[in-house]
Amino acid sequence: MSRDDAEHLHEQAPDWELVDGATRIERTYRFKNFREAFAFVERAAALAEAESHHPDIGFGWGSATVSLRTKKIKGLHENDFIMAAKLDRIAAENSLPH
Amino acid sequence: MSRDDAEHLHEQAPDWELVDGATRIERTYRFKNFREAFAFVERAAALAEAESHHPDIGFGWGSATVSLRTKKIKGLHENDFIMAAKLDRIAAENSLPH
Repeated sequence: MSRDDAEHLHEQAPDWELVDGATRIERTYRFKNFREAFAFVERAAALAEAESHHPDIGFGWGSATVSLRTKKIKGLHENDFIMAAKLDRIAAENSLPH
Repeated sequence: MSRDDAEHLHEQAPDWELVDGATRIERTYRFKNFREAFAFVERAAALAEAESHHPDIGFGWGSATVSLRTKKIKGLHENDFIMAAKLDRIAAENSLPH
């Protein structure tokens, strides 16, 4: 995907940040505590297995950060943005406003 | 805890790295795939809740990294090393040799 294409898709996932020269997208969600951060991570991991698309995920007390790219092409694919939108829907159910 | 004390306790958790001027310890475990990395993370999160001691955890395909410190003192406490040992035991059940 060209940088232009990535930027176009990015408009549809505006809360995600294009990083590493537009080869990854990343978003940090805020939660009330560790338990709620992990509840999101658990659902994100289940989604990752269901879609066979595995992000890097970091979490701790009150936050979780997801980093998406498509390993096979070492960059962004439309699927990364589709997954980003799905993660946003999951997180919307229990994350704090950012 | 002084840096000397941290270094002494560190001898008992030798696979952990002292980082950030000995204010944190960190270890990366290797796993076969995403599913096994997450299986470890799930148990680590349950331990964190049980002990009311919450690390930062990052994971992805084939690895998980745990970072421990005691937030209240912004540094290391003996409890961090106790938790490190417990995490090592949990991980030993399904991690790959490092």
